[in-house]
Amino acid sequence: MKQLDQLTAFLRFPSISAQKHHAEDVKDCANWLVDKLSSLGFKAQSHSTGLHPIVTAEGPHIPGKPTVLIYGHYDVQPVDPVDEWLSEPFDPEIRDGKIYARGVSDDKGEIMVHILGVEELMKQEGGTLPLNVKFILEGEEEIGSVSLAHFLAQHRQELSCDIIVVSDTGMIAPNLPTISRGLRGVAGLELIVHGPSADLHSGLFGGAIANPATVLARLLASCHDAQGRVAVEGFYDGASPVQNWERSMWANIPGMSNADIAKLAGVQALMTEDGYSGAECIYARPTLEINGIGSGYQGEGSKTIIPSTAFAKITCRLVPGQDGARIQDLLEKHFRKLAPASVTLEIKKQHLSAPYLCDPNNPFSQAAQRALTETFSTQPILLREGGSIGSVTEFKDILGVDSLLIGLCLPDAHIHSPNENMPVDLFYKGIEMSQALLRSLSQVELPQA
Amino acid sequence: MKQLDQLTAFLRFPSISAQKHHAEDVKDCANWLVDKLSSLGFKAQSHSTGLHPIVTAEGPHIPGKPTVLIYGHYDVQPVDPVDEWLSEPFDPEIRDGKIYARGVSDDKGEIMVHILGVEELMKQEGGTLPLNVKFILEGEEEIGSVSLAHFLAQHRQELSCDIIVVSDTGMIAPNLPTISRGLRGVAGLELIVHGPSADLHSGLFGGAIANPATVLARLLASCHDAQGRVAVEGFYDGASPVQNWERSMWANIPGMSNADIAKLAGVQALMTEDGYSGAECIYARPTLEINGIGSGYQGEGSKTIIPSTAFAKITCRLVPGQDGARIQDLLEKHFRKLAPASVTLEIKKQHLSAPYLCDPNNPFSQAAQRALTETFSTQPILLREGGSIGSVTEFKDILGVDSLLIGLCLPDAHIHSPNENMPVDLFYKGIEMSQALLRSLSQVELPQA
Repeated sequence: MKQLDQLTAFLRFPSISAQKHHAEDVKDCANWLVDKLSSLGFKAQSHSTGLHPIVTAEGPHIPGKPTVLIYGHYDVQPVDPVDEWLSEPFDPEIRDGKIYARGVSDDKGEIMVHILGVEELMKQEGGTLPLNVKFILEGEEEIGSVSLAHFLAQHRQELSCDIIVVSDTGMIAPNLPTISRGLRGVAGLELIVHGPSADLHSGLFGGAIANPATVLARLLASCHDAQGRVAVEGFYDGASPVQNWERSMWANIPGMSNADIAKLAGVQALMTEDGYSGAECIYARPTLEINGIGSGYQGEGSKTIIPSTAFAKITCRLVPGQDGARIQDLLEKHFRKLAPASVTLEIKKQHLSAPYLCDPNNPFSQAAQRALTETFSTQPILLREGGSIGSVTEFKDILGVDSLLIGLCLPDAHIHSPNENMPVDLFYKGIEMSQALLRSLSQVELPQA
Repeated sequence: MKQLDQLTAFLRFPSISAQKHHAEDVKDCANWLVDKLSSLGFKAQSHSTGLHPIVTAEGPHIPGKPTVLIYGHYDVQPVDPVDEWLSEPFDPEIRDGKIYARGVSDDKGEIMVHILGVEELMKQEGGTLPLNVKFILEGEEEIGSVSLAHFLAQHRQELSCDIIVVSDTGMIAPNLPTISRGLRGVAGLELIVHGPSADLHSGLFGGAIANPATVLARLLASCHDAQGRVAVEGFYDGASPVQNWERSMWANIPGMSNADIAKLAGVQALMTEDGYSGAECIYARPTLEINGIGSGYQGEGSKTIIPSTAFAKITCRLVPGQDGARIQDLLEKHFRKLAPASVTLEIKKQHLSAPYLCDPNNPFSQAAQRALTETFSTQPILLREGGSIGSVTEFKDILGVDSLLIGLCLPDAHIHSPNENMPVDLFYKGIEMSQALLRSLSQVELPQA
């Protein structure tokens, strides 16, 4: 099967981890990966967890050579608003040189780049590899990698390695290879305001009852001050400041000026925290974002009610020095202090993932930078990443190993949005890059045992 | 057919005026009314409008006697949240002596009470009536009676009358007949905040973009001050104050203490405007209520996005002295002044209905009070009503005739909510009341022409 057809087959699985009715699709997708990796001669397995399977695979043993563990996630985000997609999210379509499908840039394209990179390299090396290669591919990244930490702890031995390659981060432009040295963390929370026991007629009760939608609006409005800072007491305690050398470097990243970011987002102007550029806010400042709100009547026309409840889904992005569980507690305290006695608050603490920072100058990172330079004929850009990958901090904590974050996700890839895409050329370039990377990593001298 | 079966048949039509896909159901319901009224010997007709039909009917001509025009609306509210209904909204069910169905108390039960009252009275009077009776039954009350004013202007002659009976208001308790002397008006508005051109990944963009849900929350939070007053500049200009005699009278209405209202609403405590009781806030103070909000991801689990848009549906209840169109303008000005330049506001001005106040001491009201006293063996309570009936002000403005607001809708009727209901006994009592009312009105001396 052609490389592109293999990617297409992989993209057809609606492996949405957040939605229970897709659980079987997630499982089928894991089994497809096991079959593909087994066909390369890897010892591959789909492991049950409490939720969605984790796929592991291990190539031929090459004594004395470094071991690389390649991480990816085969689960994808939900697809709504589905009517804004120009083609079906799970029926991949190529338009103007790009593949459109849910998950193609986050993170199925990257997984296939490495699997096909290994396959090509094995062909060139006469059926073997110049280093030890392992895979770990999870199905819960989009819902906070809930089973991963336990799995890593249980399989520390099988997963032992010298370096981890994670391709789930951004790439500045198709010709600018990118390594991220840091990630923001996440702390999620759902806030539900309970008011009257049922929706009430706004004429018969309006004026005498705390309206849960109004209470919710007031609670949410209290989360930021006029300077765009998060106004929850203690939120910034311990948050590591942006370094001056970072500000200088990031000022020159192509495509990341305030005007560029605004254009990409489709807004007239950015709205940043006072004193910070858009790039600085995204890479290295903590945030509090509302991901969704709902209350009362949302259909056609009007309905004159006081809604019985109102909810907001919130996630904070965290920087090094912030602790997600503490941030959840601060938010809860903030909301409970401000809510009037006439409503009841329900607070669901959701997923957590710690922020991450690593040293880009260790021998494996140096080797990776050489491979990227070779593939793309230009030095890679080193930056930090606004997103979160819970697994990276768990690899560090549990396996004791650093991760190389080598991204292929372009700024206009529309991940988490309608019309997610990846250029076809970048997919093929990624397969080349994976081969160069594995060769380069194989040359790193391991310290004497 | 038994009286209760006739009501049941009428309730089975899902005549939801706000939802386009129910347009045929609304039409079928109008035709059913025409058939029923024709069977009484009334000249009945369903008139097309730009939207939903208006049904009119006229009984036998009785020279020298007063003419009463009975108004009702056969359209109903939407049914969501439909999963909170204990029986199907359009499959009427009797439980514990109450009929449960959408529209039974608002306003189909009341329409049937008068049609069956007329039918009974004709039987007793040997096939005729002691006064002239006309009906006007509209299908757009729940969406602001959009066609009614034009229809009244076009049919002024056929609808000429001396008094109008409107049974679409509240009743304090099943044994306490109630006449309302006033209604609050309505001014509706939908506010839509447009931000990025598509939902964005909150990691890749969060911190640099105005989040439409956050902007919406801040705009909505700005609508009230800490004293529970509407904080939109000019909102209270001209609003008639609550009178001292009203405050005294309303302090003693059974079932309308703050504790009673809180219990009925299913809340721990009321939240009123400072200095006013719950009853005063509901009957005679203007409000700004959020009827619904929506933005971003509302499904299971979480989705880490910055939503591209956020909306709120708002209705203000108005008191005499306030002008709805001016209130809509003030709200628009308020929101546009506060919104950051990085979002675009869309404002849809929705339905308007003027507030109303009338004199309960004219001869027709006196006659009505006598009829209610006779039927229920107790003096009726005179109050004001927190809801809005656009038609009542239009009757006054266009036909030049006052309305008697004689309500049968109990505080726990759950109108506009799941499990709308009416006691079976009250339905039968209402038929008696209608007969007594028509007899009593027939005795009013008309002024010499």
